[in-house]
Amino acid sequence: MTDTVADCIEVDYRISAGDPAEVAHAIRVEQTIEFPFDLAPEWIQQQVVGRIESTLDRHVTISYDQGVVGGGITQLLNVLWGNVSLFPGVRITDLRLPDSYLAGLRGPRFGISGLRQLLRTPTGPLICTAVKPMGTSSQDLGKMAATIAAAGFHVIKDDHGLADQPWARWRERVRVISDHVSEANSKAGTNALYMPSLNVPADRIHDAAHEAKSVGAGALLVLPGVSGFDAMRTLADDDSLALPIMAHPSFLGSNVVNPQQGIDHGILFGTLMRIAGADISIFPNYGGRFSFSPEECAHIKEKCRAPLGDIQASWPSPGGGMTLDRLSELTDFYGPDVALLIGGALHRGDLTTNAAAMVEALTHQ
Amino acid sequence: MTDTVADCIEVDYRISAGDPAEVAHAIRVEQTIEFPFDLAPEWIQQQVVGRIESTLDRHVTISYDQGVVGGGITQLLNVLWGNVSLFPGVRITDLRLPDSYLAGLRGPRFGISGLRQLLRTPTGPLICTAVKPMGTSSQDLGKMAATIAAAGFHVIKDDHGLADQPWARWRERVRVISDHVSEANSKAGTNALYMPSLNVPADRIHDAAHEAKSVGAGALLVLPGVSGFDAMRTLADDDSLALPIMAHPSFLGSNVVNPQQGIDHGILFGTLMRIAGADISIFPNYGGRFSFSPEECAHIKEKCRAPLGDIQASWPSPGGGMTLDRLSELTDFYGPDVALLIGGALHRGDLTTNAAAMVEALTHQ
Repeated sequence: MTDTVADCIEVDYRISAGDPAEVAHAIRVEQTIEFPFDLAPEWIQQQVVGRIESTLDRHVTISYDQGVVGGGITQLLNVLWGNVSLFPGVRITDLRLPDSYLAGLRGPRFGISGLRQLLRTPTGPLICTAVKPMGTSSQDLGKMAATIAAAGFHVIKDDHGLADQPWARWRERVRVISDHVSEANSKAGTNALYMPSLNVPADRIHDAAHEAKSVGAGALLVLPGVSGFDAMRTLADDDSLALPIMAHPSFLGSNVVNPQQGIDHGILFGTLMRIAGADISIFPNYGGRFSFSPEECAHIKEKCRAPLGDIQASWPSPGGGMTLDRLSELTDFYGPDVALLIGGALHRGDLTTNAAAMVEALTHQ
Repeated sequence: MTDTVADCIEVDYRISAGDPAEVAHAIRVEQTIEFPFDLAPEWIQQQVVGRIESTLDRHVTISYDQGVVGGGITQLLNVLWGNVSLFPGVRITDLRLPDSYLAGLRGPRFGISGLRQLLRTPTGPLICTAVKPMGTSSQDLGKMAATIAAAGFHVIKDDHGLADQPWARWRERVRVISDHVSEANSKAGTNALYMPSLNVPADRIHDAAHEAKSVGAGALLVLPGVSGFDAMRTLADDDSLALPIMAHPSFLGSNVVNPQQGIDHGILFGTLMRIAGADISIFPNYGGRFSFSPEECAHIKEKCRAPLGDIQASWPSPGGGMTLDRLSELTDFYGPDVALLIGGALHRGDLTTNAAAMVEALTHQ
């Protein structure tokens, strides 16, 4: 219900299939009224349908009235990538959300500065890892977590695939690992956060988060591609929970890995994760076992920190291929505000020795 | 915790990038232990890691122990399309779920036969449409819905983009349209179901569903790509709600439209929608304004009805390009168990006349 473009939501698209002008018109109609344009009343054509702000070759910018996205993040996602997700050859390359829209969103509760305070780590990267492999008992995962906590890691998460398997049931696992990490922190004077995976049924996610907190878990891992971005937002907004949230990219890959179609990496893993409350956003590091390029990773890093109303910056969290000899390259590439997710390299040889070496390498660069 | 392949979950992949054997090994590890294979204990290598059951050129079948997917549909989605969604050149082409797994899922509460009973429509296609365009007031949407209900349509849904916009607030709209449809049904002796869009914040979805029911809405529209498949499942499982559910493909398109990467159409819009409780599954019809081919649509139709334990069949619901002259082609193609979603064609000219002509054409074929 706004008149100026300044208060509109602007989306940049790259159109690789079909005539860009025709596809752009289809998008502005499809993402709003989904109705024959010529049959819509004139005021709806002008105010409700998206407006084409610019076209340059295959690059098109469309603005949407804020009224169109009324109803929260679910409708924002729907306008951004609802029916148009079914168009081949369309990719979202940028997104500008006005301050008046962003004012209605909290975003990450902690963000970069809040997590630094909570972890009493004023400088340098966050050092993160996951307990695994699936099949390991709760007790053994707990001992592993204790070793890593005592070494000085900041974040110890469940592997995201740990759900409610017979080998380590969710409830038992979260309690046992929380206990081990608390005890290790007390003994070693460390401050590690244990982060259980909220890979749980939709009707359990809030209770599970509160239960995790009540047994001592210090943070939460959420899979927004599975549980929904807005479910993550409700956890981030919950004042009685008030725990840091790390977002995992499960089920989201097809939105980014096809270069001609989808959403640019920084928008999905930076902007959207931030508005949905992720303090830390995991993505596959370049040069690891996945496919992201250095440019795509740099885009995520940038969007995790770019100005976004009053919404805090998130920690980019590259994972995969984090060997000891790459650590200084990675902190150079990402800068100090990065949550390095160290995986298999920690387990090749002695865990205590490896964990200590990682912390040493990262805290005394 | 099962020993026989018969009780495992089997997934077929087509691998278009890289060496199929290497990628298959990467998948079976990535989707389970996400840990260096050689470092995992032998029993975990054998029981927890996925097993390669067959390889033929670029087609690979991997089986997963049921223990791996313990924890509900969220973990099933994670095993199917978690990290592997980030692999370029991998596509899921089929999925076999054992009866022992399916026994834990309700699936659609109504399905094809249940909706036929509820709608007192023993034969022929379901005739469906949406009220729109966005921008229209609740009163005008209500009048439109009444006209369509009186003509004998079975399902009248909110356009999926109707959320909580200033032009027709969710609560008011749902009440007003419910009233209009109830009144039209009483007067005309018809039986139309009004289906509000549950495109609402995650922490509102259950209350919104119950509120919709309390004001007389007869069914629900859910966007599992936005709200989460398991959120839809919780609505389908809710005995105190017990309303038919239609699923919309918003935000899911990138998972299917890139031929080398993603999930085959029938698996996503057939199998996964069914296990998550969709009575009706919407997808873009071939020859409409989107991109699905006749083969892809046939695959969805097939998977909506294929044997799947005791889980009921869902209605395939093609949308887009439903003009009067195509109706007999479409009922030939899909067969009588189809929920035809008629859009813009209804509004070109007089709505009352068009709606009557559509019903006439479809009930007296």
